[in-house]
Amino acid sequence: MGTNDIVKFEALSPAEFFRRNREIAGFSNPTRAVYQTIRELVENSLDATETFKILPSIKIYIDYADQSRNWVSIYVEDNGIGIPGDEIPNVFGRVFYSSKYRIKQHRGIFGLGAKMVVLYAQSTTNTPILVRSAPLKSDVIYEYQLMIDITKNEPVIVSQRTLENKYAWHGTAIKVVLEGDWPKAKRRVEEYLRRTAMVAPYAEFVLRGPDEDDAIKIPRITTKMPDPPEEGLPHPKSVDVELIKQLIQRDPSMPLLEFLVENFDGVGETIAKTFLDFVGLPPDMPVGKLVNDELVNFVTKMREFNGWRRPRADWLSPIGEDILAEGVKFILRPEVVFTVTRKPSSYMGNPFIVEAALAWGGSIEPSDKPIIYRFANKVPLIYDEGNDVVRKIVDEIDWTQYKVKFPASLAIVVHICSTKIPYASAGKEAIAEVPEIESEVRNAVREVARKLRLYITRKEKEQELLMKYAIFSMYGEEVANALSYVSKADLDELRGSINALIREKLKIRSLEELLTNTANNAENGSNEGNSDQEHEPSS
Amino acid sequence: MGTNDIVKFEALSPAEFFRRNREIAGFSNPTRAVYQTIRELVENSLDATETFKILPSIKIYIDYADQSRNWVSIYVEDNGIGIPGDEIPNVFGRVFYSSKYRIKQHRGIFGLGAKMVVLYAQSTTNTPILVRSAPLKSDVIYEYQLMIDITKNEPVIVSQRTLENKYAWHGTAIKVVLEGDWPKAKRRVEEYLRRTAMVAPYAEFVLRGPDEDDAIKIPRITTKMPDPPEEGLPHPKSVDVELIKQLIQRDPSMPLLEFLVENFDGVGETIAKTFLDFVGLPPDMPVGKLVNDELVNFVTKMREFNGWRRPRADWLSPIGEDILAEGVKFILRPEVVFTVTRKPSSYMGNPFIVEAALAWGGSIEPSDKPIIYRFANKVPLIYDEGNDVVRKIVDEIDWTQYKVKFPASLAIVVHICSTKIPYASAGKEAIAEVPEIESEVRNAVREVARKLRLYITRKEKEQELLMKYAIFSMYGEEVANALSYVSKADLDELRGSINALIREKLKIRSLEELLTNTANNAENGSNEGNSDQEHEPSS
Repeated sequence: MGTNDIVKFEALSPAEFFRRNREIAGFSNPTRAVYQTIRELVENSLDATETFKILPSIKIYIDYADQSRNWVSIYVEDNGIGIPGDEIPNVFGRVFYSSKYRIKQHRGIFGLGAKMVVLYAQSTTNTPILVRSAPLKSDVIYEYQLMIDITKNEPVIVSQRTLENKYAWHGTAIKVVLEGDWPKAKRRVEEYLRRTAMVAPYAEFVLRGPDEDDAIKIPRITTKMPDPPEEGLPHPKSVDVELIKQLIQRDPSMPLLEFLVENFDGVGETIAKTFLDFVGLPPDMPVGKLVNDELVNFVTKMREFNGWRRPRADWLSPIGEDILAEGVKFILRPEVVFTVTRKPSSYMGNPFIVEAALAWGGSIEPSDKPIIYRFANKVPLIYDEGNDVVRKIVDEIDWTQYKVKFPASLAIVVHICSTKIPYASAGKEAIAEVPEIESEVRNAVREVARKLRLYITRKEKEQELLMKYAIFSMYGEEVANALSYVSKADLDELRGSINALIREKLKIRSLEELLTNTANNAENGSNEGNSDQEHEPSS
Repeated sequence: MGTNDIVKFEALSPAEFFRRNREIAGFSNPTRAVYQTIRELVENSLDATETFKILPSIKIYIDYADQSRNWVSIYVEDNGIGIPGDEIPNVFGRVFYSSKYRIKQHRGIFGLGAKMVVLYAQSTTNTPILVRSAPLKSDVIYEYQLMIDITKNEPVIVSQRTLENKYAWHGTAIKVVLEGDWPKAKRRVEEYLRRTAMVAPYAEFVLRGPDEDDAIKIPRITTKMPDPPEEGLPHPKSVDVELIKQLIQRDPSMPLLEFLVENFDGVGETIAKTFLDFVGLPPDMPVGKLVNDELVNFVTKMREFNGWRRPRADWLSPIGEDILAEGVKFILRPEVVFTVTRKPSSYMGNPFIVEAALAWGGSIEPSDKPIIYRFANKVPLIYDEGNDVVRKIVDEIDWTQYKVKFPASLAIVVHICSTKIPYASAGKEAIAEVPEIESEVRNAVREVARKLRLYITRKEKEQELLMKYAIFSMYGEEVANALSYVSKADLDELRGSINALIREKLKIRSLEELLTNTANNAENGSNEGNSDQEHEPSS
């Protein structure tokens, strides 16, 4: 076998693979590494708090550990549910180990982020990560120093102890020292936090950098929180052969009817029976008897069958129109905000919801096209905008149809939440091409754009009315004077009558009302418009 | 430990991870899956041939396996070095198992492509992959039917046999049945092959689809091949702590001097001694004695030290200016092509070379900005152009400085080869942001653009000359007639003298020469211009 001499084969552990290809996970250079580290840790913190209805309070402290070598120390602390002591080593030291491989909306999904932080730290500074964690109501705080045995993909416990939990603290605190460029990463990190706050205005963040003026504090501006997602079962339309095989192995003797009802979302006995009729299989046949082509056929039919219920949105946790409007108003300070939370939809059996906000005027910097803020499962996507479906859709829209003339102060916020965000890479910065999602994004953006058009139209009318009223009043004054002179009638009485006449003709009761109206629209524009209609100017 | 109740942890095998997140590896929908499958198999075929100086001959046959269920069968056969029989199961059935984790230029690098094909096939059609392979000079052909045990990340051998190798065949043939959309993928696949042929004109491809007219044949147009890359050692500037730790473990008793000379590229005793002086460590100290901060310091110094040799380009296999020009001419049929292969450069110790071609006129479709063809290690990058560094750089260039007025027939080809292409994702479609690579791409594009400017300038001058010559000849004829009439001198003689005078003044010997000159420039424009000078119109 000649090729044995010229080609050598080897197997890599997942840890070794990602050590060598860290760009894939977003750790492509010292600037990006700092950004990615903070992002991964903050997302874990948010998952550990808001998913359990705890108002997140997150502290981030950055220091120069050794400035001559570009060593940066990063500390992130949260008030979440903590990690059970015996799980800590694997959670930080084993690639592809996670609590998030569940059908439920999470910010993290790959079981990769925290391990990449550890891998990057030990590859650049050879220092372990320090983890302190206390689960809810724990008497102790668990403390570990951890590294990864890269060849084996196993945690290495450098030190371990438990501390008394005197103040009933719960949460997780991480400290890590790595090679990084904080001055360059700073702007990105701040932008990341600002945008995170936009969709999570119920969280508070403290960021303290190494320099005096390097501190920002983003306060909590509401205590309203979206309902946390529930954990779900797979939708019968989203299955593949491998998943069915794995489920069958749990209990091959289970009758088909029960198998369907037990393992899938929204499948009751009636639906299961209808489906089994459709496939032509008896309800009491043990599922383990499905083999080979019969099995594949069963799966194909599951995906073709149109009688399933729609995927449920209980596993999702959208931000909601009110909270989103509050977050956007607080961060962007616009004249007006319109928001929409679309109805749940699905792709390949995965439920998803698109939300959009349109912010107009006020402190928004005028620009030649709409400013875009993208979010997926409440995670802001900062890099790779040029490639994103949201940019594409917003650019395709003919904004003149919505009475927008550029340069304009217009920002579009789009949030996609799903039990499975189809990211195009493990760096989680762009979303893969999925027609169902594209179409929902388009509908959402159009919906808020229609609200803007109504708002602008009404503002124009009010301006017109105001102008008419001003002119009529002026002439009214002249007329009153003239009439009073001619008829010797009382001037004030005449003025009053003429003014009343003008108001009646213009259909306004008082000037105050008119001005108040305009102000109200600016304050509270959120939920107006012909919300769900699809009569659209063709674009 | 309260959270045990609310949160469940689990570990995924690499196979399970990629089955669940196949978008990350480019298998995001049935169209893309067909494209990605063919791409991965063809790249393996090219690696198995050209790397060993075998002229690649690759056959791709597509069929509908079951049209009602969108099942497509894909067959790819090459004439490469084959795979040793006992390695076949792991090569196709174990994620992160590869012969390509070496310091050497490969098209494939992740050890993921072929396994993703198997995973996708078995998840959608539950069918095994069929592999036939014969190494060079093998008496037998090994045949396997393989699936993957996803939970264990291990190959499952469905069947296995050896066949007599009657015709001394060598190579690998794969057949796989998967759910896919061939009609939609077809255009992308054809474009992929066309572009692959552009940078590998020494390869021949046959693509036969399920329909009558669905066949394309891309012939081999040259037997010139670039030198295959050699296998290298890591460059001392590209190390990280983990790599050094792994190398130390092999023999901790090795003296420092020897350790450096043995394990790194271009490190002789003199350089090693200079470096050890710089760090302040004795040459005979056993490397295993380096621990903790000393070890980290050693690595930091290795990366800071400026006395290393530049990374060698022997591990790289650029296409070369001539082969690239031939490929581009054959595929794009332009009026003229200019090519450049830049000198080797490096980022983080990884050597890389940038090559560029500029094709102008002829059959190139005129458009409003340059058409771009991107390649990395000879792999065409088809998706995600909007996000790519090459698009960015080409768009930044002020083309009027190179005498180009749009719409123009202008195509830019950029090829980056490296022992480590910093892909932004495992789908291998975009390159991560690396300043060193950006700057070399800019230089390469400017270099061919300068050649275009010279070409256009000369063509303008020649046009001018031709015009002058035509006008002078016309007047010359008049003058000859008049003179002949007045002086009774011989008309032909006068004509001859006047013509000679014109040619002398215009510095041309004959009209034929002038016309030939223009034609030659169009034929053979490849390597002209002030190739390596950096006098650049500021942009």
